[in-house]
Amino acid sequence: MDDVFTLAGRRLGSRLLIGSSGYPNRQVMLDAIEASGAEVVTVSIRRISLEGYAESMVDLLGGRWTVLPNTAGCQTAKEAVLTARLAREALDIDWVKLEVIGDRETLHPDSEELLRATAELVGDGFQVLPYCGDDPVVCRKLADAGAAAVMPLGAPIGSGLGVSNPRAIERICARSPVPVILDAGIGTASDAALAMELGCAAVLLNTAVAKAEDPVRMAAAMKHGVEAGRLARSAGRIPILTHAEPSSPQLGLVGS
Amino acid sequence: MDDVFTLAGRRLGSRLLIGSSGYPNRQVMLDAIEASGAEVVTVSIRRISLEGYAESMVDLLGGRWTVLPNTAGCQTAKEAVLTARLAREALDIDWVKLEVIGDRETLHPDSEELLRATAELVGDGFQVLPYCGDDPVVCRKLADAGAAAVMPLGAPIGSGLGVSNPRAIERICARSPVPVILDAGIGTASDAALAMELGCAAVLLNTAVAKAEDPVRMAAAMKHGVEAGRLARSAGRIPILTHAEPSSPQLGLVGS
Amino acid sequence: MDDVFTLAGRRLGSRLLIGSSGYPNRQVMLDAIEASGAEVVTVSIRRISLEGYAESMVDLLGGRWTVLPNTAGCQTAKEAVLTARLAREALDIDWVKLEVIGDRETLHPDSEELLRATAELVGDGFQVLPYCGDDPVVCRKLADAGAAAVMPLGAPIGSGLGVSNPRAIERICARSPVPVILDAGIGTASDAALAMELGCAAVLLNTAVAKAEDPVRMAAAMKHGVEAGRLARSAGRIPILTHAEPSSPQLGLVGS
Amino acid sequence: MDDVFTLAGRRLGSRLLIGSSGYPNRQVMLDAIEASGAEVVTVSIRRISLEGYAESMVDLLGGRWTVLPNTAGCQTAKEAVLTARLAREALDIDWVKLEVIGDRETLHPDSEELLRATAELVGDGFQVLPYCGDDPVVCRKLADAGAAAVMPLGAPIGSGLGVSNPRAIERICARSPVPVILDAGIGTASDAALAMELGCAAVLLNTAVAKAEDPVRMAAAMKHGVEAGRLARSAGRIPILTHAEPSSPQLGLVGS
Repeated sequence: MDDVFTLAGRRLGSRLLIGSSGYPNRQVMLDAIEASGAEVVTVSIRRISLEGYAESMVDLLGGRWTVLPNTAGCQTAKEAVLTARLAREALDIDWVKLEVIGDRETLHPDSEELLRATAELVGDGFQVLPYCGDDPVVCRKLADAGAAAVMPLGAPIGSGLGVSNPRAIERICARSPVPVILDAGIGTASDAALAMELGCAAVLLNTAVAKAEDPVRMAAAMKHGVEAGRLARSAGRIPILTHAEPSSPQLGLVGS
Repeated sequence: MDDVFTLAGRRLGSRLLIGSSGYPNRQVMLDAIEASGAEVVTVSIRRISLEGYAESMVDLLGGRWTVLPNTAGCQTAKEAVLTARLAREALDIDWVKLEVIGDRETLHPDSEELLRATAELVGDGFQVLPYCGDDPVVCRKLADAGAAAVMPLGAPIGSGLGVSNPRAIERICARSPVPVILDAGIGTASDAALAMELGCAAVLLNTAVAKAEDPVRMAAAMKHGVEAGRLARSAGRIPILTHAEPSSPQLGLVGS
Repeated sequence: MDDVFTLAGRRLGSRLLIGSSGYPNRQVMLDAIEASGAEVVTVSIRRISLEGYAESMVDLLGGRWTVLPNTAGCQTAKEAVLTARLAREALDIDWVKLEVIGDRETLHPDSEELLRATAELVGDGFQVLPYCGDDPVVCRKLADAGAAAVMPLGAPIGSGLGVSNPRAIERICARSPVPVILDAGIGTASDAALAMELGCAAVLLNTAVAKAEDPVRMAAAMKHGVEAGRLARSAGRIPILTHAEPSSPQLGLVGS
Repeated sequence: MDDVFTLAGRRLGSRLLIGSSGYPNRQVMLDAIEASGAEVVTVSIRRISLEGYAESMVDLLGGRWTVLPNTAGCQTAKEAVLTARLAREALDIDWVKLEVIGDRETLHPDSEELLRATAELVGDGFQVLPYCGDDPVVCRKLADAGAAAVMPLGAPIGSGLGVSNPRAIERICARSPVPVILDAGIGTASDAALAMELGCAAVLLNTAVAKAEDPVRMAAAMKHGVEAGRLARSAGRIPILTHAEPSSPQLGLVGS
């Protein structure tokens, strides 16, 4: 299937984006990212770590994959905007996965701060990919503000609950003028497939692979899951019936 | 992954089994089966059609795929046993997907007749793969009677409802001494992935591919879905949490 | 609502049946049964305990409630039939909740043995209420064999999972010629309400009340849950929409 | 159970709040409200209709029930604040269910506008009950802004989908400093019971009753459903097990 996906002006062959945090070690991380088939890898930006962690990650990953800096852990628009700018200066990368967390327990996005930061960073020339709730109004406003995509959560970060509210995601996909990327909550491959079947353009995940017993194998599972869901979505599934429908011809039964 | 699957003494490279009924035409059927990667294809046996339909299907498919005759539409053990024997004589095939339907509306298996027919056909030297309900006691009895696998339904045939009772399937898989093949109900690729994640050894489907808008593409989706679920199962998924868990390191936040 | 329920020839005002096992003590049991509003109370029959446990339970409960003996723990038709006969002799009660368990781990009914025992006890003049799987063919055969009701499980006994396969229960209710009583699996009041909304004539439960932190209060909750579901079922619920529908008039908005 | 519920300083005996829109006629509305046991009835405020519709509704309902004006259909904070003020002037009622809709298709709340309007109306001396998404950060901010309760949706208004994301509601309830009232989406009585079991302090609904085939009966169902869920929540339900647990004593089986 000729199915190129354009995200923030980048043509991508894979609809799976993957994070770089929490793997047992760097070799497993590299092997898992490789197995996932992802072309985009997110890297968390920390101010004090820019010259250490983030730069070394970009060195490690940048030759082979497209790095997408993320503002994980930021709690205000100001903090997130500052983080994104530092990342751009240090890494010369002009796109960003924008996270602005509203509380430390649920790690749920703060929509107000997110909208503010999105507008500011778009004005600043960034390609902004905001991580948001599964709220259709927030998604529309983010798109109106110039976001290159919207990234609603399936469930809380790291929870592995999958897509807790499939109808909400489906409604967002049906109406979004920009690509919808399911971000957070994925636990296993069928979750990723479902997200794609609901109409998502792509899936971003991290913990489900990094913390699996076998991250490399789970990365391969996710690759197949995203591909499965993408193909199924475009293949036009059968309707759901509440009764049975014979698949076999009903004539000429033995004994009839 | 070196993941050969042995079913009734046959070594199979694919864990997807596919049916041959209900496609728009034979070319689409052949293309879809090809795209699915399946090695085993079920063909419905009808007494009056043996010299026509079934034999011609076996001629068409037999060179490329392993044909699994099925007794679709039979309503008694006697009828099913007779059908299986006719198939063996005419086609020289000694395995059978055993269907004994308890009513024409839900197409739900009749457990009593199924157990009777299984015992009789096993005694007769058949490799028997019975299509059954998601009932752990019936599954155990079928295995005790010598079935080569058990094939519980996910949902009514042709319904596309997916796996209606995942916990029941999971319980069956956890205790079965023979391979468990999810049969019936699959609607889309994430359903197939889920079935594998629950512990099924394989998935058998027909309508979800044959009646999709694009059967060939849906067949490819199912191939990926089964592979995704198989890999995810063996990769050891993360636990499901009710709260969030940060994927990114929490130290050194900008502004902290 | 004038909504009398006839079960095995008995006119009942309550559609909740309750078990008598596993309460913290007898006073809590009596208070909980009272709070539940149930008119029928099941009592487990044990051969060696008939003169002790069961008779004393019947003495305790019989003046106030209708006792329904059950053959809990039986694993063969023979054992269950014998138990039912002993109960009738000792207690002079001619109806029975028929349990024939297929394995000790899932406590799932054994359909073959259950059908055999049902036929035999019906022939013997019993009013038989068999506890069965959520299998429409088994339910129909039980009714054909003369069962006064069918009692499919919602989920494994004591699991508190609720109704694991609502569509299966709904299909059974839609076609059953005898009352359908949801038996086993109920965990909380909304489960009981749902069972009734699916079309069940009544609900039987035990553990959810007996093992709740406050059994008496949970019994009251179940009473309301069953009543809620019964009323909702007969009130004709609104259709499920995938989009929103304003409840308020859309004309004359302030500012429009 | 002595279970008085205090909402915005009002002591209420019922945890069901009901809307007054969309009934077949006024008599059915009055009978349904009566049957629901609700003490609080919402009435939509329209500027042009204040002297007509709303005032006549308040005349009709005010003697018997506590009227809660709502700003249904408003799309900006400004519009909603204006509507609330007009209602207070005309009706002399100082509390308001605050609706600010973000789009006309999903009728999903606009969180930014809602927060703005809440702050302004709280400053103005109103008791504000905002209708919001199932977003824990928005709920916390609304409480911080002085809302008397938060009213997250279960599903889109009028959809009858029930509680689409039970875990989100549960998380909100577990952390909210103010009462959580499930508002919108309820379709049937088990939905209302579930909302209460998740920890909601109350349920507000309208369409599920007004558009049921028999609104008066459905109102009674909802009354029982809310009561069932409230009791079940406080009774301490049994844990959910994935395996079975016998409810009956396992000793002395007949035949053992």
